[in-house]
Amino acid sequence: MIQTLDLKHCLRIRQKLDMKTKPLGSLGKLETLANQLVLILSQGMSDEELEKAKFTIINPSISVFAGDHGIAGEGVSIAPSEVTGQMVANFAQGGAAICVLARQFGWRLNVVDCGILVPSNNTSVINCRLGESTAAFHQQAAMTHDQLDKGLANAGELVQRELSQGCNLFAFGEMGIGNTTSAAAIFSALSGVTPELAVGKGTGVSDEVVDKKRLLVEQALNLHQLSSNKPLEVLQCLGGFEIVHIVGAMLAVASAKKIIVVDGFIATAAAMVAIKIAPSSKDYMVFAHCSNEQGHQKMLEWLGVDPLLHLEMRLGEGSGAALALPIIHSALAIYNDMASFEEAEVTQVVK
Amino acid sequence: MIQTLDLKHCLRIRQKLDMKTKPLGSLGKLETLANQLVLILSQGMSDEELEKAKFTIINPSISVFAGDHGIAGEGVSIAPSEVTGQMVANFAQGGAAICVLARQFGWRLNVVDCGILVPSNNTSVINCRLGESTAAFHQQAAMTHDQLDKGLANAGELVQRELSQGCNLFAFGEMGIGNTTSAAAIFSALSGVTPELAVGKGTGVSDEVVDKKRLLVEQALNLHQLSSNKPLEVLQCLGGFEIVHIVGAMLAVASAKKIIVVDGFIATAAAMVAIKIAPSSKDYMVFAHCSNEQGHQKMLEWLGVDPLLHLEMRLGEGSGAALALPIIHSALAIYNDMASFEEAEVTQVVK
Repeated sequence: MIQTLDLKHCLRIRQKLDMKTKPLGSLGKLETLANQLVLILSQGMSDEELEKAKFTIINPSISVFAGDHGIAGEGVSIAPSEVTGQMVANFAQGGAAICVLARQFGWRLNVVDCGILVPSNNTSVINCRLGESTAAFHQQAAMTHDQLDKGLANAGELVQRELSQGCNLFAFGEMGIGNTTSAAAIFSALSGVTPELAVGKGTGVSDEVVDKKRLLVEQALNLHQLSSNKPLEVLQCLGGFEIVHIVGAMLAVASAKKIIVVDGFIATAAAMVAIKIAPSSKDYMVFAHCSNEQGHQKMLEWLGVDPLLHLEMRLGEGSGAALALPIIHSALAIYNDMASFEEAEVTQVVK
Repeated sequence: MIQTLDLKHCLRIRQKLDMKTKPLGSLGKLETLANQLVLILSQGMSDEELEKAKFTIINPSISVFAGDHGIAGEGVSIAPSEVTGQMVANFAQGGAAICVLARQFGWRLNVVDCGILVPSNNTSVINCRLGESTAAFHQQAAMTHDQLDKGLANAGELVQRELSQGCNLFAFGEMGIGNTTSAAAIFSALSGVTPELAVGKGTGVSDEVVDKKRLLVEQALNLHQLSSNKPLEVLQCLGGFEIVHIVGAMLAVASAKKIIVVDGFIATAAAMVAIKIAPSSKDYMVFAHCSNEQGHQKMLEWLGVDPLLHLEMRLGEGSGAALALPIIHSALAIYNDMASFEEAEVTQVVK
């Protein structure tokens, strides 16, 4: 059961931000973000506790979930499926972009094998395998109901382990050759947006391959005849093993009333599923960036959210979420540490 | 004499980024930024040195220059001029937004009195006073030629002190009630953009005050009859003491071939002056963010530059520049530390 945020501290948080030594609202999105973060982190506090509290991010955790996709066999990516496993090895060895960014900003990094063609032999990779690959979803459901359930449960357990270490902020990345096609199909099925608008270039395919991706998504939507009100069915028919884990993890974090940092196109497709299952989970989500994958902007608009960063990235792995952490720290530091007009003896001008 | 960047390492830097384990170009602006930063930091290196080098930011320095403005007497801000000095005290005591952000990200912070109504009595404030305030620039030149020269020289000395501590990246912020009016006037004079488009709400004034600001800028442009080819004259007639210092500091950093991080509306007006004086200084500039002050987007377009952050901030103080530092660190970390396809044994797909 995911509860909506208790808004009782909302006014006081806004007042405290408005009393800081700056023109009203002049820190823009940093203020909106501070509002949301403090509201989440102050759940259950009394008024007195709120007044005294300093709010900080503890043990931020990023989990990169990897899975292979049956649809990749149709040639929807510039890279073959073997690259998924090669990149998992790269994550485990610390050489990928997400490893560099995680070290830079102090994220704890989990690498999770959710089902890739060849199991990783690196002991640091967490085993949550649901199989070798999903099925090609334009021909049959991507996974069985049991695989779906097991994936959601795996993710919940992983989140519980992180929570037991005090973690209060989570991000989720992914790796899976073919997964922009899966995410586009989920987006179409849940929103009614046409495959034409939902499908993009992924890692950088040609216009011909974009056309093929659209056709496959159309075939899949025709085959499965999904209802946007049955998000778990959408996930089972069109999802990837990594996407199932992200959905399960997001729901677990929202249940625990902690912060979720949402990455790009694939992670946002997972967020859409989570929000369809439990609308209140959205209260706990910070949208990190707008990816250059064409459908992502539309997803964010459909969700009615305004992301923090616009860096024209389209890598996945959780890289956009990783980059948002210093902005998140800053928003809390502004709330915690900036002087008020009274403290600094600065004339406050009330318009 | 400011030299253009030597482009001889350009191709090799691009190649190294393209060999990293990621789809080509998928880190977006982070890659463009890494290119520029490494090009600056590798000036004078041999090919062999470039291959071995790791590039890092050393002792990043942010200087907040404060000055009072004669034009403030016309009621162009929501706040009275005394707030400039109050905020200088707030900077010195560590309570302002820029102090919080500087601590967060490891900037060394200098607070510089360039000429405010009441001199600061805090010993940590650097004294570069050119007077108590500029003159109201719709009636006469904002400052004398001697004040202009002294301000530029002061700033050069300040930069030299930072350079002697190994600093290779500089940002410049400002505080000065009335200074968006001065920056808008400079923008109009150098670009030909009408005061209508150049003038905005600053700290948050009413539409009536925006109209008054426009009228004052028009009066000033009529009075001084400036040529965009005489940027020093524009600066003397329309500038503020803090703006003069930013121009001088930017020129000194570019002369030393180090990195300049450009903040918002006022800092970008100073950057326009610096670029008019020495077009090559632009090579060394990283544009940190797009402010919510209406003219800033137009300034950035006029300069043909694409800023890193869009956080709807409009505070000044160097706050936007401060927030760009983790992105800058990340761009270099990607260049230094990400594995290549060969190192990670990942299949590289060449389209």
